[in-house]
Amino acid sequence: MFKRLDHVGIVVHNIDESLKTFCDALGMTLLERRDAPEQLVEAAFLDVGNSTLELIAPTDEESGTARFLQNRGEGVHHVCYEVEDIATALEELRSRGVRLVDETPRQGLHGLVAFVHPKATHGMMIELLQKTVHD
Amino acid sequence: MFKRLDHVGIVVHNIDESLKTFCDALGMTLLERRDAPEQLVEAAFLDVGNSTLELIAPTDEESGTARFLQNRGEGVHHVCYEVEDIATALEELRSRGVRLVDETPRQGLHGLVAFVHPKATHGMMIELLQKTVHD
Repeated sequence: MFKRLDHVGIVVHNIDESLKTFCDALGMTLLERRDAPEQLVEAAFLDVGNSTLELIAPTDEESGTARFLQNRGEGVHHVCYEVEDIATALEELRSRGVRLVDETPRQGLHGLVAFVHPKATHGMMIELLQKTVHD
Repeated sequence: MFKRLDHVGIVVHNIDESLKTFCDALGMTLLERRDAPEQLVEAAFLDVGNSTLELIAPTDEESGTARFLQNRGEGVHHVCYEVEDIATALEELRSRGVRLVDETPRQGLHGLVAFVHPKATHGMMIELLQKTVHD
């Protein structure tokens, strides 16, 4: 089902400050930075060879990401695995009794995404991603 | 500095139970299962295409892993990035003022490893790995 790890997503207070850490101090390369207003976050993707690191910062105190920061502090939020066909993957997971956050895929930054419930996966928040193919 | 993401490590209560989740329900393949008595843990590595998922369970209630479970519950513990030369990587990080858990590399399950302090990396626990080359 899982083709590859696409990215690890971490929640931070501030994108600029975290870029200083991960690019200037740790030597990662910024690939892309963008707003995701529908999720009330700003995101940045950094290159780590076979995968990327996603930095996520809330742009609104009422966002789920802001609540995550208040409850847990900065740190790893989710791990995203690429799948070939997200509808099939969700159907397979459902048939095996795996609890989902998203019963149907929704549009993410790089394709169709859905989250598996962390209570079903030992506290690990898994995002499934079916990448959009650009012609 | 970081060549690639090698694995994500998650702490679980019980390896057998978590294998049911990640192999039977989520379809990952078990690559290796072994004891690490010096860390008071048992570990299992699962194939996810370009990387692996490491399951870690304490074998002793006095271990750091057992304390992690008591304080945080099951979930992501660390993200491991492969580096070419771990001594050089640690020296570079030190020169840029990055706080380390391990000032010198130590022997891990698959090579020389060292942890960066999560307070230096926005709550993300990063393991550096210089893989052992098998002739």
